[in-house]
Amino acid sequence: MEEKFLELKKRLSEVSAINSAAAVLSWDQQVNMPTGGAEDRAAAISVVEELSHAKFTADETGSLITACYGWAQGLGEDSFEASYLRAARRDYDIARKLPADFVGEFSRTTSAAIDAWGKARANSDFKAFSPRLRKILDLNLRKAQFLGYKDSPYDALLDLYEPGATKAGLEPVFKKLADGLKPLIKEINARAGAVSNDIIKGDFDEDAQFALTNEIVAALGYDFSRGRQDRSTHPFTTDFSVNDVRITTRTERDYLPASIYGSIHECGHALYGQGTPREFNFTPLAGGASLGVHESQSRFWENIVGRSLPFCRWLLPLLRKHFPGKFDKVNAEELYVAVNRSAPSMIRVEADEVNYNLHILLRFEIETALLEGRLKVEDAPEYWNAKMREFFGITPAKASEGILQDIHWSLGVIGYFPTYTLGNLISAQLAEKMAKDLPGWKELPEKGEFAPILGWLRKHIHSQGRKYLPGQLLQRELGEPVKVEPFLNYIKAKYSGIYGF
Amino acid sequence: MEEKFLELKKRLSEVSAINSAAAVLSWDQQVNMPTGGAEDRAAAISVVEELSHAKFTADETGSLITACYGWAQGLGEDSFEASYLRAARRDYDIARKLPADFVGEFSRTTSAAIDAWGKARANSDFKAFSPRLRKILDLNLRKAQFLGYKDSPYDALLDLYEPGATKAGLEPVFKKLADGLKPLIKEINARAGAVSNDIIKGDFDEDAQFALTNEIVAALGYDFSRGRQDRSTHPFTTDFSVNDVRITTRTERDYLPASIYGSIHECGHALYGQGTPREFNFTPLAGGASLGVHESQSRFWENIVGRSLPFCRWLLPLLRKHFPGKFDKVNAEELYVAVNRSAPSMIRVEADEVNYNLHILLRFEIETALLEGRLKVEDAPEYWNAKMREFFGITPAKASEGILQDIHWSLGVIGYFPTYTLGNLISAQLAEKMAKDLPGWKELPEKGEFAPILGWLRKHIHSQGRKYLPGQLLQRELGEPVKVEPFLNYIKAKYSGIYGF
Repeated sequence: MEEKFLELKKRLSEVSAINSAAAVLSWDQQVNMPTGGAEDRAAAISVVEELSHAKFTADETGSLITACYGWAQGLGEDSFEASYLRAARRDYDIARKLPADFVGEFSRTTSAAIDAWGKARANSDFKAFSPRLRKILDLNLRKAQFLGYKDSPYDALLDLYEPGATKAGLEPVFKKLADGLKPLIKEINARAGAVSNDIIKGDFDEDAQFALTNEIVAALGYDFSRGRQDRSTHPFTTDFSVNDVRITTRTERDYLPASIYGSIHECGHALYGQGTPREFNFTPLAGGASLGVHESQSRFWENIVGRSLPFCRWLLPLLRKHFPGKFDKVNAEELYVAVNRSAPSMIRVEADEVNYNLHILLRFEIETALLEGRLKVEDAPEYWNAKMREFFGITPAKASEGILQDIHWSLGVIGYFPTYTLGNLISAQLAEKMAKDLPGWKELPEKGEFAPILGWLRKHIHSQGRKYLPGQLLQRELGEPVKVEPFLNYIKAKYSGIYGF
Repeated sequence: MEEKFLELKKRLSEVSAINSAAAVLSWDQQVNMPTGGAEDRAAAISVVEELSHAKFTADETGSLITACYGWAQGLGEDSFEASYLRAARRDYDIARKLPADFVGEFSRTTSAAIDAWGKARANSDFKAFSPRLRKILDLNLRKAQFLGYKDSPYDALLDLYEPGATKAGLEPVFKKLADGLKPLIKEINARAGAVSNDIIKGDFDEDAQFALTNEIVAALGYDFSRGRQDRSTHPFTTDFSVNDVRITTRTERDYLPASIYGSIHECGHALYGQGTPREFNFTPLAGGASLGVHESQSRFWENIVGRSLPFCRWLLPLLRKHFPGKFDKVNAEELYVAVNRSAPSMIRVEADEVNYNLHILLRFEIETALLEGRLKVEDAPEYWNAKMREFFGITPAKASEGILQDIHWSLGVIGYFPTYTLGNLISAQLAEKMAKDLPGWKELPEKGEFAPILGWLRKHIHSQGRKYLPGQLLQRELGEPVKVEPFLNYIKAKYSGIYGF
């Protein structure tokens, strides 16, 4: 039996190697590629992805999984082999449920939709995009049927990004979160003038910003011998393997936090990738428990660590070093307040810690309503705008700052948005648990002592790789499911302090 | 029949896309990859190359080639289809002649040999490398037997890099070249003190060097919208497709020509790649007629253009701009003399235009003698040193500056070296023909007018892609085979001027 398992491992390690190649092609596309190379690169990525898919979904893979499954589970639920087989079977079953011609149709539709979305957004013309969106919703409904579900087709899609999560499970969590956030937002908006972020706006040399972010992520524990940072239009993290996990950042000359917090966010993802055990490399156990758990890592470092007062105390001398003269008269408390300024925003990706989750809740409501046929595509923009008024008291003037702002739907992705909020919630749960194990950890960043924090995350999260479903992982390591209270307690305490209420 | 041809084109375009992916992986490996990623990257490249090989050598490919061949030739010898089929069949036949287990053994042997060579060279210990070299010679003999040959096994290997070339054909050419060069070298060495290159040695900011080389290659016609330049340990050019042809350069703080002429050399290769017709992209007709013809392009730009007096006149103001103060008291004639200084060198890659080809002739003699069993591996170092004395009057003090200096043999590559000299010879033939079509072209670089020169090369060489074997291409475009006289005339005229004899 061990021989069959070795055969399976060899096969899936080759699939991982091919996926690694595709990831390099995509990274280069976003970081280095000259404009002229676009079409040929798309062709190369497509061929490589097809080869990976063909190898992975071949009957031989299924036979090997079936042959080893029982044997592996017999080695103990927590064994490498048992976890390996669970992850492999899950991926294989999903991949096999989708017929090749459906995957082809899906891919052709979304390829065209991305362009159409780009143009529609540029013209703020939702009607130009709506036929694509209808088609994409239809394809996602069919996808859900192929994958199977009990209550809502949304569950089948959500499960792709956050295994085990369901719409019915998320609804009460999201409602409690919204109920907790709305009064907080009112309090903050009533004091809108109390906080300024002028000190982090201005004119900051972009090479200096890049050098600063390299210094920051190195301090947090990012291993440059197994990764590198570059610049790209949209910051992202990509894992070629456990031993080459790359991040990108984006510098804005007139707005310093874009690079600093972009880098810290991606570094949080990358620390998860770099912390994956070596024996999980090129196996189905690499890659993180779920998108939500992944996002908990990026948000933990970005917000809970990076936007804390102790971190700002550590950061200030670095700012003075990289931008001589600019921060001489600023103190750490002013910096802390500036990087935490909260204000309603039309755009999700520009939203602060308080407002961000309501942007997600809005998308969750619209996605589920559209998919379940409770909302028509043509009525979606007004639904969106009404929700913006309800949550933030503002109305998008045009679709580009409303319903057309996100790329996700044009990519064919429905059911992904909730993972952002799950990440925020889990990050606060991790911070709470960390406080029990490492009393006083929140002060460590002031001295630049990030290693104990990373060590705790390595032990409880990173070292598990993809061995457990996210719900199981939280239960094992935190003794609880996803909860709203830690995040609400954290955000209320923080913002009542900053805005004084 | 056209349907079968379209099927073949689709298939080979997918093979090209996979090869493009492998090239990106390799480029990234040399330009960007963090050290930790080495092992996984090697695995990814190996898997991707196997997929390409499997797809290309599949029976289906052969059936399609056979099915279309006659039909394509019927469309006219010069037609796209006929040329396509000739190139495809040539590649397919070669690939199919080598059994999979032999390819595996070859690859395993050379993988280990590269490491062994690196260590042996570091210790100047030829004996540590000699068992590997014996094995590699043996594998190359077997390779030649698989491929087939008439006179010498060397012919089968040479043909891989320079289709149609034979040992018997090269010998008289190389002899005439050596006979012409030896007296020239004596004249120069007798005047060794007459020329100094001190002005291009010193302390040159490496970022400024890089900026300078970007400006130079852009002026020569390198299209940055379909390529980019980076830095790497060894300069190289790589074609991901016709639309993404990248070059690298190497800066040495204390020696300016390394970056300038490294960039111009690679730019010469890249102009060939970027000049390939779009309809040849992702087909067997992309990639250049042969390594020798490719090298003729790099050498033409590097030496015949880049080391000419008119070019130095154009270059000098650029040097003054990028290195303020350093070239104020230098004139173009001094610069010209400095970049052309000639002196015997132990190391091929450091050799000047006069000496370079004798380094190749030495290797050609040793390679053929070793392969044909006329020279034993253990006697090769002394053979090498004797040739160095004969050609240059110097003796390597250790194997690292003698027989162990090149990586080629450890890569399993025998029969490649002659292409360097063929490139030098062809570059001079091109210059001679160009002078007939474009009288006065040699003065154009002084005014920065490189477009007519590039246009001529585009028309006569680049636009042909891989339609013809190198010998056919030269016959068509120059009306002659590879010849020694143009190079000898060029080099004698140049150096008698510089050294005054």
